[in-house]
Amino acid sequence: MKTVLIGSGNVATHLGKALVESGHEVLQVYSRKPENAQELANQLHSEAISDLSALDASADLYLILVSDSAIPEIIHQLPKSLKGIVAHTSGSTPLSVFETSGYQGQYGVFYPVQTFSKTKKVDFSPIPLALEASDSQSYKQLFEVAESLSNRVFSCDSKQREAIHIAAVFACNFSNYLYSVAEDILLRNGLEFDLIRPLILETAEKAQHFSPASVQTGPAIRKDLKIIKQHLASLEQDSNTDPRIKQIYALISEILTEK
Amino acid sequence: MKTVLIGSGNVATHLGKALVESGHEVLQVYSRKPENAQELANQLHSEAISDLSALDASADLYLILVSDSAIPEIIHQLPKSLKGIVAHTSGSTPLSVFETSGYQGQYGVFYPVQTFSKTKKVDFSPIPLALEASDSQSYKQLFEVAESLSNRVFSCDSKQREAIHIAAVFACNFSNYLYSVAEDILLRNGLEFDLIRPLILETAEKAQHFSPASVQTGPAIRKDLKIIKQHLASLEQDSNTDPRIKQIYALISEILTEK
Repeated sequence: MKTVLIGSGNVATHLGKALVESGHEVLQVYSRKPENAQELANQLHSEAISDLSALDASADLYLILVSDSAIPEIIHQLPKSLKGIVAHTSGSTPLSVFETSGYQGQYGVFYPVQTFSKTKKVDFSPIPLALEASDSQSYKQLFEVAESLSNRVFSCDSKQREAIHIAAVFACNFSNYLYSVAEDILLRNGLEFDLIRPLILETAEKAQHFSPASVQTGPAIRKDLKIIKQHLASLEQDSNTDPRIKQIYALISEILTEK
Repeated sequence: MKTVLIGSGNVATHLGKALVESGHEVLQVYSRKPENAQELANQLHSEAISDLSALDASADLYLILVSDSAIPEIIHQLPKSLKGIVAHTSGSTPLSVFETSGYQGQYGVFYPVQTFSKTKKVDFSPIPLALEASDSQSYKQLFEVAESLSNRVFSCDSKQREAIHIAAVFACNFSNYLYSVAEDILLRNGLEFDLIRPLILETAEKAQHFSPASVQTGPAIRKDLKIIKQHLASLEQDSNTDPRIKQIYALISEILTEK
């Protein structure tokens, strides 16, 4: 399938590479900044553009891979109707953004449930891909591309997709933030972050096989109020600790001790 | 080495099995509840006791594997001085608990930095073991046992050990809680938790190679206030969501948007 990537960030980079590896063609990479477009275009053997009026009209699929807030503006700048399907890749932007932005062609959503960092290669095959489309023909075409990349393609509506995104913020973005809190605490005490890396991995691996609530451990679920109090006092004493981190400790411990 | 396990919970079970697999002998398993002592003793081919006066005086190492709050009481019940070393396995209980509980023999701490659930087998070799002891001879003996189980044995004082424990609460216990929040959100929207399992694993794997702060992703670090507001509204609308979960979302997002 002939595709065009609108965007050149982390998701565009990883998805672009996966598309090329699966035998698809990336005709163009668009970015407002020509150097960003060029950098990714070079990797994908495609053309760099920094003006949407230069969009190749012969593509089968145009993937919008920009930050959520920029999506309506990008749709506005597209020709009112393209022959190919236009799909955004956002968790929390509803399908209706195409209609409200005045787009009249076929469109859809192609949402990979994964976190992408520039520094780490990603295998697409286990990544769930959530699809939604303006019509059944577009859905079928999106499904074909999705299936060539991943073993877990499924359909969901915009409300469900937002729920997945919120769940992902808690389970991924916020967990990673808690890792960084742990790192700060260790470094301030002359210890290495490496000490708790096996623990982080074990916790995530446990969640692969069990319901997380059923394998909850720690002072709070044991209702060990003495240790909780001692930890809160220790966080309080450390003047370098943001008081909101103590608040997070107190809040989550309160919820867990009630279970 | 001849050991006695005082306690029969998750840590006792996993540590006991690891000791036996590494060629040590578990002479006795103590639990207040005879049936619990018996269950683990059967697995380790050792004697079950439910009265500390029946403690075998010939052991080299007595490991206290009870909840933190029960440690002083257990030490009180021990003979004032045993020939072997007595060690507790708690992150947040200082070494001085032995002195304040009136113990006069040799003692130490043997703290495995890992989470243990009954349901999942644990490989001890990558688990960091934090040691502390009343004297250098006891330290040497604890080190010998520790080294037979793990590749990562290190010395730290009670304050550092507490810092490791607090870091572990954030990175492991609280992350697991966030996984369960994600599960609740997905189930309430007719979706499976399985959808975000790859995301959870990828996030933990990323933390194995990078500093978590350097690979932070999500709406908050992108300062996408519109999405944050939309997610908070969605959490608010769902009457089944504990309002404290919205508070956690707001608090962590606030911290991350300031970065």
